[in-house]
Amino acid sequence: MPKQPPLLFLLDRTKRVSLQKQISLNLKRLVHSGALHPGREIPSSRELARDLHISRNTVLQAYDQLIGEGYLEASPRRGLFVSEMLEEKNLRRAAPSGAVAPALAGFDKESCDEVTKPLPFRPCQPDVRLFPLALWNRARAQALRKHGANLLQYHSHHSLGLPELRRSLAGYLQGSRGVRCDWRQIAITAGSQQALFLLANLLLKPGDCVAMEDPGYLGARLAWQRVRAQIHPVRVDAAGMDLGSEKEFSSKLIYTTPSRQFPTGSCLSLSRRLALVEFAARKKAWVVEDDYDSEFRYSRAPLPSLQSLDSAQRIIYVGSASKALFPSLRIGYAVLPEPLVEKFAQLKSVADEHGPWLDQATLAEFIENGAFYRHIRRTRREYALRLQVFLDAVAKFDVPLSFPHTDGGMNVAGFFKGFAGDTECSRRLERKGLEIPPLSRYALRATPPGLLFGFTGFEPSAIRRSVESTSRVLHGA
Amino acid sequence: MPKQPPLLFLLDRTKRVSLQKQISLNLKRLVHSGALHPGREIPSSRELARDLHISRNTVLQAYDQLIGEGYLEASPRRGLFVSEMLEEKNLRRAAPSGAVAPALAGFDKESCDEVTKPLPFRPCQPDVRLFPLALWNRARAQALRKHGANLLQYHSHHSLGLPELRRSLAGYLQGSRGVRCDWRQIAITAGSQQALFLLANLLLKPGDCVAMEDPGYLGARLAWQRVRAQIHPVRVDAAGMDLGSEKEFSSKLIYTTPSRQFPTGSCLSLSRRLALVEFAARKKAWVVEDDYDSEFRYSRAPLPSLQSLDSAQRIIYVGSASKALFPSLRIGYAVLPEPLVEKFAQLKSVADEHGPWLDQATLAEFIENGAFYRHIRRTRREYALRLQVFLDAVAKFDVPLSFPHTDGGMNVAGFFKGFAGDTECSRRLERKGLEIPPLSRYALRATPPGLLFGFTGFEPSAIRRSVESTSRVLHGA
Repeated sequence: MPKQPPLLFLLDRTKRVSLQKQISLNLKRLVHSGALHPGREIPSSRELARDLHISRNTVLQAYDQLIGEGYLEASPRRGLFVSEMLEEKNLRRAAPSGAVAPALAGFDKESCDEVTKPLPFRPCQPDVRLFPLALWNRARAQALRKHGANLLQYHSHHSLGLPELRRSLAGYLQGSRGVRCDWRQIAITAGSQQALFLLANLLLKPGDCVAMEDPGYLGARLAWQRVRAQIHPVRVDAAGMDLGSEKEFSSKLIYTTPSRQFPTGSCLSLSRRLALVEFAARKKAWVVEDDYDSEFRYSRAPLPSLQSLDSAQRIIYVGSASKALFPSLRIGYAVLPEPLVEKFAQLKSVADEHGPWLDQATLAEFIENGAFYRHIRRTRREYALRLQVFLDAVAKFDVPLSFPHTDGGMNVAGFFKGFAGDTECSRRLERKGLEIPPLSRYALRATPPGLLFGFTGFEPSAIRRSVESTSRVLHGA
Repeated sequence: MPKQPPLLFLLDRTKRVSLQKQISLNLKRLVHSGALHPGREIPSSRELARDLHISRNTVLQAYDQLIGEGYLEASPRRGLFVSEMLEEKNLRRAAPSGAVAPALAGFDKESCDEVTKPLPFRPCQPDVRLFPLALWNRARAQALRKHGANLLQYHSHHSLGLPELRRSLAGYLQGSRGVRCDWRQIAITAGSQQALFLLANLLLKPGDCVAMEDPGYLGARLAWQRVRAQIHPVRVDAAGMDLGSEKEFSSKLIYTTPSRQFPTGSCLSLSRRLALVEFAARKKAWVVEDDYDSEFRYSRAPLPSLQSLDSAQRIIYVGSASKALFPSLRIGYAVLPEPLVEKFAQLKSVADEHGPWLDQATLAEFIENGAFYRHIRRTRREYALRLQVFLDAVAKFDVPLSFPHTDGGMNVAGFFKGFAGDTECSRRLERKGLEIPPLSRYALRATPPGLLFGFTGFEPSAIRRSVESTSRVLHGA
């Protein structure tokens, strides 16, 4: 064995990272940088421990992990070597600090903490700091006690989700939204976005026409466009989507947010609801009712869901736990007309077999033990307060926008009183650290200019401060 | 207020269900059965507590939950009423015990615990009782401490998954499978099934040809068929998929399980690997390499992945945590050629925005702290033992099948020595409580008859007992 130069290990005892991990990181760095070639022998645990003045056990544990990861190979009676399977050219490509292919450069950030922390007034952000994580963890432990290891198995026969959760949701949706269904009609999905995507795949063929509100929800539009459907934009006014002027139109699917039109905030009037339900039944069109934030109503009781008016099995109700609980949970649901249930179940099974089971059992428990309702009540109170803080600040700082729909939800749309380029305004706000998208971003055709403010994700003091900055920018100061 | 008949509450103090929950269930039962009509006043908490001889607090908590669920409505100074929003006809339909629409009857079971507990020898079942749930929970707590509430937010800019997890997986796949990639090429998916489904959506158009092993993996075939691709079945022999005879064939995508052909268990030979890689580069075909259970090798070292041989960026490596950890976690991954990364990210974002973030952070932690490797080593030892127990029992009880490929994985295929209808055999075994699918189930064309045994999900004693029953059935006793 030729004499090897000593390895340069950098250990920092003041760091919060354990010494074991530091050894492992050092060794990987030496391998990736080319200082340690595949096949090279590395010091025994005894030697390294002595050199670094640390316990041999720490080194042994680090080596053990590196063997598991495939960096090192033990050869009985000969020693420990850098694995020959690590070809050098591969190492270069995999090196975290190495050159990145042009196609990937800048596409994906190393860390996500910055990107995801919402700036005021990013729309649709629940305040996750209000979420009772300790109660959630308790519900999870309870679910594990109840079902045991069986929770961890495949549940391929239940692609639509955990029966307990679907039963709980059926009760909740009936009580709170008047939704009429058997629990077997409920499909649990990976956020409401998956429900939209699977419905697009199930119900639409390339060239089919989809009518949707304009401006409207981008996630839905992308789902319809993904299957190459034609989008038919429908005008929105203070009474929601206006299908009245569209006598001639024929579409396979109509997408709407009747409780609170996204993004304008208007509510679909009862007469239009009845007309829509009748239209869908007569034309055999599907209606997707996206009830994305109906938990958050602050003043008057909401109209019951469109689905509750339907007797022709044409309406698909879609909802989400992202707002009521927390977004990264990725649980949404669809209430399917009976004829779609089995087809949707088959598609869901091809799409991802079934959803994460432990989360579903946790949510079922969280609903059953009442923590779900308490959390909704608590956030509803808090968000009502924040909306008031927002509107007070808007008045105080004389924001030059009008806010016609302010009775609920997580966002309010502010419309410009005169002509204004909302995209340019939004860009100017962005330069001041404010994330307030223009309404035109959500529209295919010309739409009254305005800005969309999400007020739920931010504390009152931040709301006041940010409204003040907004006002200054809009007044051109 | 007219005098109301007293309500019939059934409480059972010997049950494990809490009294609060029993009250809530009783009240729901009364509402659903029609005994309590919408608008009817219900007894005050004081009255009910007195009638039932329980604490008033228990009743208050039950009522509080029922209000949250929308069953009850409080009217200030008048009392508590069954919510008027619960229309009676809806209640009947939602009643758990009510008549079920024919389309749903029998489709979906009320409980899933029976259906999902695997019978011997259901293939591809890890033994979830071996999973170190306590260590997993510790990793989860550690991830929560590290990232805080930010873990709960939307992470829409990271539809491909948590950067930390993708970096850890890049290191693991390079070390253990020779996979060459930058971490940004790794996409985390909802099980490997979602990877297949999204790849089908991304790469195939109706009518495109997909070559796949026959017999082969059904989940993959369903994904290609879903986008109306044509399946071109390719013969499998002891050296894996045999493309040699297919001179004229041209397909957009080739699906293969080279490490261990599913279901036969053969390994794609090196010469065929090189030919396949060359073929894909020349014809600009995509190859999907499904490395579904490569963690479980018991004797010789495996061949490195196909992907490690590719220099033309045509091979997509797909893997899963379902076998190495537990299936209901629903985490899989794809290693994408650079030109596909951004398109896949866009599609994933439309499909479900992004995956459950807390699970991904937990897995990253579980890999980093070494628990992942320790669990793989432990299960590998245990499964090697179970395979030996299985093969010993096969010899001892003289099972009339030959097992040519027994060097790893979770399943072994047994081939009939003479002519046999494997479907009929499998049915006879099913009647004895054995779940041993016929190889013909996985095939489009005629295939050598045989049965597929999964041996990893069952304890040695169950394996011995079930092999004995199998032998008795196959010998026609």
